[in-house]
Parts: sequence; C-alpha cells; structure tokens
Amino acid sequence: MEKEHAIQIDLCSSRKEKPRDDELEFGRTFADHMFVMDYTEGEGWHDARIVPYEPITIDPSAMIFHYGQSVFEGMKAYLTAEGNAQLFRPERNFKRMNHSNSRLCIPPIDEAFALKALKQLIALEKEWIPKAEGTSLYIRPFIISTEPFLGVAPARHYKFMIILSPVGAYYKEGINPIKIAVESEYVRTVKGGTGEAKTGGNYAASLKAQEAAEEGIAQVLWLDGVEKKYIEEVGSMNVFFKIDGKVVTPALNGSILEGVTRNSVIQLLKHWDVPVEERKLSMDEVFQAHQEGKLEEAFGAGTAAVISPIGELVWGEHRLNINSGKTGAVAKKLYDTLTGIQYGKTIDPFGWVMPVEERDLQSLKATV
Amino acid sequence: MEKEHAIQIDLCSSRKEKPRDDELEFGRTFADHMFVMDYTEGEGWHDARIVPYEPITIDPSAMIFHYGQSVFEGMKAYLTAEGNAQLFRPERNFKRMNHSNSRLCIPPIDEAFALKALKQLIALEKEWIPKAEGTSLYIRPFIISTEPFLGVAPARHYKFMIILSPVGAYYKEGINPIKIAVESEYVRTVKGGTGEAKTGGNYAASLKAQEAAEEGIAQVLWLDGVEKKYIEEVGSMNVFFKIDGKVVTPALNGSILEGVTRNSVIQLLKHWDVPVEERKLSMDEVFQAHQEGKLEEAFGAGTAAVISPIGELVWGEHRLNINSGKTGAVAKKLYDTLTGIQYGKTIDPFGWVMPVEERDLQSLKATV
Ligand SMILES: Cc1ncc(COP(=O)(O)O)c(C=O)c1O
Ligand SMILES: Cc1ncc(COP(=O)(O)O)c(C=O)c1O
Repeated sequence: MEKEHAIQIDLCSSRKEKPRDDELEFGRTFADHMFVMDYTEGEGWHDARIVPYEPITIDPSAMIFHYGQSVFEGMKAYLTAEGNAQLFRPERNFKRMNHSNSRLCIPPIDEAFALKALKQLIALEKEWIPKAEGTSLYIRPFIISTEPFLGVAPARHYKFMIILSPVGAYYKEGINPIKIAVESEYVRTVKGGTGEAKTGGNYAASLKAQEAAEEGIAQVLWLDGVEKKYIEEVGSMNVFFKIDGKVVTPALNGSILEGVTRNSVIQLLKHWDVPVEERKLSMDEVFQAHQEGKLEEAFGAGTAAVISPIGELVWGEHRLNINSGKTGAVAKKLYDTLTGIQYGKTIDPFGWVMPVEERDLQSLKATV
Repeated sequence: MEKEHAIQIDLCSSRKEKPRDDELEFGRTFADHMFVMDYTEGEGWHDARIVPYEPITIDPSAMIFHYGQSVFEGMKAYLTAEGNAQLFRPERNFKRMNHSNSRLCIPPIDEAFALKALKQLIALEKEWIPKAEGTSLYIRPFIISTEPFLGVAPARHYKFMIILSPVGAYYKEGINPIKIAVESEYVRTVKGGTGEAKTGGNYAASLKAQEAAEEGIAQVLWLDGVEKKYIEEVGSMNVFFKIDGKVVTPALNGSILEGVTRNSVIQLLKHWDVPVEERKLSMDEVFQAHQEGKLEEAFGAGTAAVISPIGELVWGEHRLNINSGKTGAVAKKLYDTLTGIQYGKTIDPFGWVMPVEERDLQSLKATV
C-alpha cells in the first residue's frame, strides 16, 4: 500500500523565541517545524516533509469545513533528567489513528513511517521540550479532508500533519482531585456511532454539556446513549472506580475511546496484583457502593493529566464525596509510576518508553 | 447583540468562465465572489465583506481541524422564465443555522443581516444562476471555528462564509425513483446528540454506512440510535410514507434535522386536505403495511432533489418494492408544485418565495 517515502526538509531561517517554562499555556504556542504529508486518490500518501510551522492555504469548499471528515491523536514527548527525549507508547497512537481512519473512511497511514517521521521531527525540535518538572511537548498528529467539493462522500484528498506544542505541568501544586458531573441530558455518542474514533465531531458534540455544567465542574462524565445508565468515560479521560478493593472500568463497547493511559493503568494494576475488572458499570452501582461506604476511589486516566483523582461526583441531586476529596493510594501510585516511567525516573518493565535518539536527527539531516 | 454592519466589497478584476449548463457538476465550481464575516470574542461578528472567491489562510491549530466545531446550511437560488432570481424560504435556513449554532456553542448570527448579505451576494452573482430547466445556484452558508488553540472548549474566533456553486438538474430525465437501504449497524446520532443540528460531524459519522451499503443504494435510511426500530431520516432528506391513504413522517424528536422541504411538504399536504401525520414510525409498521398492500408511496424530501421517490427499500433480507418502483401521484404532485413555486411557474399561496431584486445590487454597489 505504501511506497518507501523520503522526508523532505525545509528548515526555517530563524527560530522563534521559546516561552519560559513557567509561562507555558496548553496548546497556544507551537514549535518551529511541523510534519506534513498529502493524500491524493490514486497516488496514495505522498510528499512527506518537515517544514516551518505556518498557516495553510485551503479552499473554502474543502470538505473538512463542511462534513467534518477528520481524525486526530494526542501524545507527549518527555525530557529525562539526563536530557534525553522520549515518547510513551507512540505506536499505540498511530494504531488508534488508523482505527479512527477506518471509521471515518479516511485512507490508512503507514504507522511505522509515521512513527519514524515523528521521531525525526522530535529530534529536530528537541529544544522545544520544556525542562521543568511535569512539563512536556504535546504532540498533535491529525488528518483533515482537503478536497474542494460540496458532496457528502469520502474525500479524495487529505492532509496528515503533526504539530508540536510545549505544555506546562498539569498539576501546578501536585496531583489534585477534581469535581466531575454526570451528564444526563446530552449524549456524546452511541454504539454504532463514532465514539471509539478520535474525530472532531465527538468533541464538538461534547461542548454543550460542559457549557451547561455548574461552576467548578472540571469535566462531565458521559453515560451510554441508549439507557443513560452505564458509565462510559470523561471528556478526555477514561474512568476508573475502586469499589470494595477492586478497580472497575467500563469495558470497551464500541462507543468508548480506548485510551493509551487506560491500557497502561490496567497493565500496571495486574502487575501489582490489584484486582481490576473491565465490565459494564452503572451509575446506580457506583451510587450504591458510595452509600455503603465501599466507593474507595475514583479517577480519570488520559494523556493530559495522566491520572486525575475525582474528589466529588455530582449526579442530579446527589453529591458523592469520594475518599474525603483526597487523592487515593491507588491513584497516587499509578500517577507516580506512570510519570516516573515517562520521565525516565522509574524502571520501565513493559518497554513502554521509546527514546528519540541522535541518529533520528542524523538520518533526517542526511536527507537535506 | 449585533451592531449595524456595513458590507465592504472587493470585486474581482476579471470574472471566471462559467461552465455550460449541461456540464454542471454538483459542488465543484464556485462563483466569483463569496461573503465572509469574522467573529472575535468581545467584539462580536464584524468585518462583513463580499470578496473574490479564493482560498483562505488558516493556522494548522485552528480548532475546526481538531474539534469539529462547525455548522452549515444549504439552499438554492432559482431563475424564473422572466429572468428573475429568487430564493425559497431562506429565512428558515438562517433560523436553523442559529439553532445549530446553539447546540454547537457557536455565537448566534444576526439572521436578518445574513439574509440581506445573501441577497446582495446573489444580486451580484446573478449571472452564475444557470438557466436550463432544473438547474440552480446552490448556496452554502457555513461557520467554522478558527481560533488557533488545541483545547476542547468553544472557540473565541469564527468565520461565517457564504459560497455559491451552480448545479445541474438533479433528475436528468425527469423525477425518478431510487433504492434506499435501512441501516441497522451504524448510527448517525441519538437523542441528546447533535442530530437536529446541521454540523459536519453528523455527516462524517454517516460515511461508513454508505461505504458499506451494496451497489446501487442511493442513500441509507437511519433508524433511531436507541432501539434501532424507529425511522428517522435519509442521508440528506427527511422521509415520508403513504400508508393506507395517509402520509406519515417521523415527528421531530431531537435527533432529526428539521428540513425546509419537509415543512413545505406538510403544509402543502394539509392545504390539499391529504391526511398527514407527524409521529413515531417503526420499520416494523412500514414492513407490515407493505405486506398488507397498504404501503402506497415512499419518498424523501430535501433541497437537493426536492422530492425523491423511493422505488425499493432494502431492510436486511427484505426488499420492499414500492408502487411497482414508479413515482407515486402524491410525490409527483409535490415535486411539480414545489419546483413550480421555486422557479416561479406556479402561484405561491404561502409567500415562500423571496425575490432578489435590482435594488439589492444597488444597495450593495452604494457601499463600494
Ligand atoms: C474521549 C477521550 N477518552 C479518553 C482519552 C484518554 O486517552 P489517552 O489515554 O490515549 O490519552 C482521551 C484523550 O485522549 C479522550 O479524548
Ligand atoms: C440530514 C438531513 N436531513 C434532512 C435534510 C433536508 O433538509 P432541507 O429540506 O432543509 O434541505 C437535509 C438536507 O439539508 C439533511 O442534511
């Protein structure tokens, strides 16, 4: 399907000034370069290149503006104390991207090639990885349909891009519980819909619930679209509940995004012999457990926050205070272990870390 | 909310060559000018302008590329035998656009101003309305989130644009029945979702079902996302069934788009004293009616085809042949009446037509 691609490089003439580590705002500053590749029907993906970060020029009739055919990914590059750049399970993101592509009728990318391109881009932009504790370089691969055509059909032209944004520490003062509201009116997606794909429309659909939520609600907890009974996930995290000694998370059912962090959490818990269950979990069950004093912890898991303890869960009239609003032991251990692995402070028993090396930059420079 | 806007004009230096009326392809050719207006938080909608149709320049981090926050509309301008340009119920499209905006957390537009701008644009581009029978100028208003920010939140910057594309006759050889398949795996949307909004994500979600459908299927018929039992609508049309003398269409339930054509069809049927019901309608009921010989007609209704008779309905193993695969009397009368009104051939008892007049062009020119 894919021919061997060479990555063309066009380096920018002067580098932008980088923001200080203590003034980083999520998703507003971008590195000097980006990766771009085009798809043309009949020709496949072509013209892989690393070019200066700059606006793109696109027709007003480009299909992305009208019919939402797009997918994206999110991951991070971390700097170790030794000054090495590393990625966390990036192959899973490109695999998930192809899963999303399939649902959205977007032609698949060559995952191995995308990973190679990403490593070269990170090697080139290594200085953009901030150094302070908890900071990282956020990586946003995405594909948009660019064909100028007002018709509801899969597009014949696409752009695959990777852009980079340095981000500050998620928790400024250490890991800290948040307040989450169970959403009972709006629905994010439903079985048979696009829930297990990472596509723009799911996030557009989610905005209204957040807007309607009361002050202080960090994110909403989605219930299934059919019965509005079973827990699905949080805005940008999968969710776990520790009930009576067991950690329970909703099973992948076709409408939940399969998080890389979720998968890592499950593996770690198994490794530690903590009982973990992937199954249907109703809000009634969580409420019941809370009434009986058996709801020990709740936390979200996703790339942005890694682990986000839930201190209070608002469900209609009910306000469930969890673990006295404090971070639980399991959440804390997961957070410490995952960030430890990501920043190279803890051993990595699963081979999750992928270093970005000097030779990635060499192989890139060789093509200039 | 809106201050009085003046529309700035920047006319193109030379006009493009127009395609011949018999070589028009839907949505691939665009008129010389487009309408553009920007939204900035704190400032509202501003800088309304009519400018040459050309690509826009937009940041790779623009939110539309990532989180799908967008809405669109679709309507047409028609040329009468006397050479006058006219619109069909355009105020309904801008009203629906604001309804979509509300669901997608996009700031509302000033509907009266948008209509004024549209009329001026059509007056300027009148020559782009093709003349041959059944042809028209397709009008695509749309709004996209343009803020460069990788965060899931309503954007603070948007672009509202109107582009125009001359389109050929939908039926080259007279109104003609199509084959539709009932979709039982994929779901377009669900109550609580974005189904009643005209937003890109709904259409992106719909592509897979069409891809999976057998050869010859023109569009798919969506069932409700909860029970997969009740009929909702077709890809880009609302749907009607004539059962035992009564015309039945699914009631607006929160997940169906409220079509302008649908509303017009209902009004016409009432005007003609044809019994019409808006209610829940299951596929079982339609199947049962067919078995008993009571399914007299089925047709879709939407701007593109106006009325699209359904000659065959594929539902799993079943193939329902409707009215011997021929256009029914009600569908035909609706088609003739609606197109008659749109092209100014039939009297317009409801005041649906809105003429675009010489003074719309005058008032535009006055601002140059
Ligand atoms: C809807 C949704 N669920 C879950 C996640 C967590 O996935 P991951 O752990 O891969 O970041 C994300 C964030 O990417 C998300 O957007
Ligand atoms: C999903 C959907 N339903 C129904 C319709 C019909 O609406 P209208 O009659 O306003 O064109 C359309 C087309 O606009 C549509 O996209």
